[in-house]
Amino acid sequence: MPAPSTVPLHFYFDFISPFGYFASLRIDELAAQHGRTVEWHPMLLGVSVMKVMGLKPLLDTPLKGPYTRNDVGRYAREHRIAMQREAGLPPMNPLTCGRAFAWAKVNCPEVAKDFAKGMLHAYWAQGIDLSEASSLANIAQSATISGATLVEAVQAPEAARLLRDEVDTSLKAGVFGSPTVTVDGEMFWGIDKFAQIQKWLETGGW
Amino acid sequence: MPAPSTVPLHFYFDFISPFGYFASLRIDELAAQHGRTVEWHPMLLGVSVMKVMGLKPLLDTPLKGPYTRNDVGRYAREHRIAMQREAGLPPMNPLTCGRAFAWAKVNCPEVAKDFAKGMLHAYWAQGIDLSEASSLANIAQSATISGATLVEAVQAPEAARLLRDEVDTSLKAGVFGSPTVTVDGEMFWGIDKFAQIQKWLETGGW
Repeated sequence: MPAPSTVPLHFYFDFISPFGYFASLRIDELAAQHGRTVEWHPMLLGVSVMKVMGLKPLLDTPLKGPYTRNDVGRYAREHRIAMQREAGLPPMNPLTCGRAFAWAKVNCPEVAKDFAKGMLHAYWAQGIDLSEASSLANIAQSATISGATLVEAVQAPEAARLLRDEVDTSLKAGVFGSPTVTVDGEMFWGIDKFAQIQKWLETGGW
Repeated sequence: MPAPSTVPLHFYFDFISPFGYFASLRIDELAAQHGRTVEWHPMLLGVSVMKVMGLKPLLDTPLKGPYTRNDVGRYAREHRIAMQREAGLPPMNPLTCGRAFAWAKVNCPEVAKDFAKGMLHAYWAQGIDLSEASSLANIAQSATISGATLVEAVQAPEAARLLRDEVDTSLKAGVFGSPTVTVDGEMFWGIDKFAQIQKWLETGGW
């Protein structure tokens, strides 16, 4: 057995990624089973996939788009995850949630993850579009963040800068997809990697 | 429990795909555990990924290329699969093996799969380039196919046509990646899906 590590895992996701949402429902528990915590990071597929990798959006890609739509539904049924938003529909603008979370991580770190979970739940489970800052007021309140403060902060330069920093950091780490999890620097992409992540945590890697 | 099905699974792979190789080592046994057989199909990533989907080769894609190289090695170490060929090197020309297998499926069906396994083993485990028809003679012999007949057949129009037919059929089925497995029409892409395929076979799907 390896010496137990308490270094946090890193979890990268885009709010508009269905598999990022699915991963968000499991990653903290998976880490906790091995005495680890998880730092969550907003990233933007629009930057990594389209600008850096030069690819089309996944759902607009021939063959892969239809496959992925089916794969999302199959996973949701398998894990009994209620979804009000179909993966095939045009996504919301992810900048608002990404900026809100990046801002919350710095300005109210102890509740930022709850806030992110609230946004993910509203978007995916309740089908609420969160493209407008005002749509986040109630979700912020539920995470004990002042709704008025949050709505104002999302539209100020600091939040945009903090998200850019998060995206830059994710790209420097080599992150390109959502979800991505790193364990002691080892990178795993995709919800299908969770079994391998578990084994990696159990064994210390190979 | 669903009524047991004996419909064959379909397994699509490109000879130059490392994850296709890994899947080839497991798919028959996985199917047999559920009373199923597997029909193997050669496909060409050069057609599905580059021509139909309009994407770059995976290993030439920024961020995803380095990730994939590491992922291949990680899987090989995890499953103790000896590899003499690194995933990051330029691949051989996959047409020769694809044509040879497509020809063998029609002309010596009872040993065609053994022949395909022999080619995969030679390329991945032994690091032998199989771009030239002549390189397949000994592998054919080991599968009780006349080496001289095979080498001649690979260079004749029938083999090229048979591979084109296989590739067309795979594209019509929606196959874009290697490995892809279909179970009663349900499609699963990637080696990481094998746990879900197993569950699908056990339960009859959901």
